[in-house]
Amino acid sequence: VNKRIRVIQFGLGAIGRSAAKLVLEKEGFELVGAIDQAPQFAGQDLGRVLGYGPALGITVSKDAEDLIGRVNADAVIHCTGSSFAGVFDQLAAIARAGLHCASSCEEALFPAYREPDLAVQLDKLCLAHNVAMVGTGVNPGFAMDTLALVLTGVSQRVDAVRALRVVDAGTRREALQRKVGAGLTEAEFHALAAQQKIRHVGLSESLVLVANGLGWDLDEVDETIAPVLADRQIKTDCLTVARGRVAGVRQFARGLQGGREVVTLELQMYVGASHPRDHVEIEGHPPLRLTLDGGAPGDIATPAILVNMLPRLAEARPGLHTMTSLALPRCCR
Amino acid sequence: VNKRIRVIQFGLGAIGRSAAKLVLEKEGFELVGAIDQAPQFAGQDLGRVLGYGPALGITVSKDAEDLIGRVNADAVIHCTGSSFAGVFDQLAAIARAGLHCASSCEEALFPAYREPDLAVQLDKLCLAHNVAMVGTGVNPGFAMDTLALVLTGVSQRVDAVRALRVVDAGTRREALQRKVGAGLTEAEFHALAAQQKIRHVGLSESLVLVANGLGWDLDEVDETIAPVLADRQIKTDCLTVARGRVAGVRQFARGLQGGREVVTLELQMYVGASHPRDHVEIEGHPPLRLTLDGGAPGDIATPAILVNMLPRLAEARPGLHTMTSLALPRCCR
Repeated sequence: VNKRIRVIQFGLGAIGRSAAKLVLEKEGFELVGAIDQAPQFAGQDLGRVLGYGPALGITVSKDAEDLIGRVNADAVIHCTGSSFAGVFDQLAAIARAGLHCASSCEEALFPAYREPDLAVQLDKLCLAHNVAMVGTGVNPGFAMDTLALVLTGVSQRVDAVRALRVVDAGTRREALQRKVGAGLTEAEFHALAAQQKIRHVGLSESLVLVANGLGWDLDEVDETIAPVLADRQIKTDCLTVARGRVAGVRQFARGLQGGREVVTLELQMYVGASHPRDHVEIEGHPPLRLTLDGGAPGDIATPAILVNMLPRLAEARPGLHTMTSLALPRCCR
Repeated sequence: VNKRIRVIQFGLGAIGRSAAKLVLEKEGFELVGAIDQAPQFAGQDLGRVLGYGPALGITVSKDAEDLIGRVNADAVIHCTGSSFAGVFDQLAAIARAGLHCASSCEEALFPAYREPDLAVQLDKLCLAHNVAMVGTGVNPGFAMDTLALVLTGVSQRVDAVRALRVVDAGTRREALQRKVGAGLTEAEFHALAAQQKIRHVGLSESLVLVANGLGWDLDEVDETIAPVLADRQIKTDCLTVARGRVAGVRQFARGLQGGREVVTLELQMYVGASHPRDHVEIEGHPPLRLTLDGGAPGDIATPAILVNMLPRLAEARPGLHTMTSLALPRCCR
C-alpha cells in the first residue's frame, strides 16, 4: 500500500518543471522519466533542466510514445497544452500505456463540454487499460470550482453560486503578466482578445463542472472578456504599465437556467490588483461566504494539486474523471 | 441512474427531524420510514412529528430492526447518539439489512480512533452486505476537518494545520445553549465538564481525520476544555447569563508529532460570541488562510451534509468510509 508512485513528467514548462521538482521532494513518489520536445530540454539530463547541480540520471525524452511504452511507471503528470482536442493523442497514448494521468490541460477539467465524442473515446480507453485520468490545477480545478462545490456540501439548497478570483499578475511570472495583456493599449488588447490570444482558458469548464456537480442543466453558458485599465502607473519586476494602458484582464462566465443567472464566475488577473483573493458565495439555505486571503497562488498550487491527485487516481475506479468523482483532494506526502 | 434514493430516518431529535424534512423536499430522495423510540414519537404519523399539517402515511416505528428489515429502502440517515460503541449495534443492523448509512454519530467520523476492533467489524459487515457507511456532520465532519483537508489539496507541503470555529451559541437552539454550560457558575461548569456532561464530542476525531488524511502519524493527541466567562450580562431568546457566569465552552485538540504541534483545533461555543466564523490556516508552502464568515450554521449544515453524502455512499466502494475516501461533498438535488 505504501508503494511509491512512479511518475513521468510530460511537459517541462514552468508548471511541469515545478511539478517534477515536487515529485522529487515527496517521499510517496519517484520520478522515473520526463518528456519535452523543446530543443533546449530534449536529450538533457533532467537535473540540469530543473536547475539542480547534480545529474538525476533521467534524460529528457522527446519521443513521448517511446518513453511511455518503455519506462516502468504508474502515472503521468501532463502539462503540454490547454486544448483537449490538441492534447487528445497524448492522453490516449498515456491511457494505452496503462498509466494514470493528472493533466493541467484546462479543457480537460470537463472535456465533455467542448469535445463530448473525444471524452467518450478517452473514457473507453481508460476503462480498457484500467487507468484513471483527471484534468486539474488551481484554476480551473480548485479555486473557482472544487472549492465552491465542497462548500455546498453543507447546503440544504443552492440557489446560485458566485466565485470571484482576483490575481495580482504583477507577482506572477513574466509570461503570465504578458498573457493577461499588461502594457498593451486597449485596441491591442481587443485585437488579441478577438484572436483568443489573451484569455484565461477554462472558465467555462469551471462553470460547467460546478453546474454538473450540483446536478444542474444549464440553458446557456456565456463568457465575456474585457481589459482592466491601469488607473496609475504600475511597475512590476518585469514591466511598467502606463496609466490608461491595459493592466490585465477581467473575465466572466455566466450560467443561465430558466433565464436566471445561477452560476457566476469572475476572474480578475491584472498587475497591481489590490486584495488578491479567492471568494465564493453560495446563495441558498444557508447563505455561505468564504474567502481565501491572497488567493491560492497558481505557480505553487497547480503543481501541488497535480501531484496530490495522483494517489486519488490510483485508488479510483478506472475512467476519465472529473474533480467531483475522485476522493477528497488533500496534500500527500 | 436517476432513481430516487429511498431513505429511512433513524432518530428524530432536532437534527434527525431536520434531515427528514430535507429528504422530503429533495427530488432525488424519497422518505420511506422513520424510527424513534421516544414515546412522544413512536406510533405517530411522521407528518405530525415534523409539524406538517397533513399525514405523510409514515408511522414512526420504535422497532428499528423490524422496520429496517421490512421496508424497501436504500439508505439510512442515523442520528441517535455520539458514542460509536453506543450505536454500534444499530449501525451493524443497518449494514446487515443491506442499507447505506450516513450517521451524525460524532465518534463515527473516525471510528478506528476509539474503537479499532468495532470499526474493523463494521467494515467487514459493510463489505459482506455491499453497503457504504460514513460518519459526518458540520462538526465533526466539515468545518474543522474536511474543509481544512480540501484546502491542502493545493499545498506542496503542509507543516501545520490550525482550525478555529467560533459559534455564537445564543443563536442556536436552547438545548445547545444549555449543553455549552451557559448560565452556570464556574464551579458547576468544571463539575459537569469532569463528568463529560459539557463538551463537544468529536474534536479529537476531527484532528485524527486531518492527520490521517495528510498521511501523518501523531505521537500524541491532547484535548482540553475550559469555560468562557461572560464579560457582561448576555441575554438570548431562552436565557440570561450574568456577568462572570459561564457563557460557554472553549475546547482545544492538539496533535503532536516529534514534539511539535502539527494540528491545532480550537472550538469556541458560547452565547454572545462576536464574529462567529470557521477559519483554517495552513502553515506550509504556500501558506493559506481561509475564512467562512459567520461559520457553517450547525442546525442547517449537519442535516444538509448527512443527506448530501448519500449519493456519494451509493456510488462508493462498499465499506466503512471516512470523509476522505468518498467523492467530493456537494449539494444534491
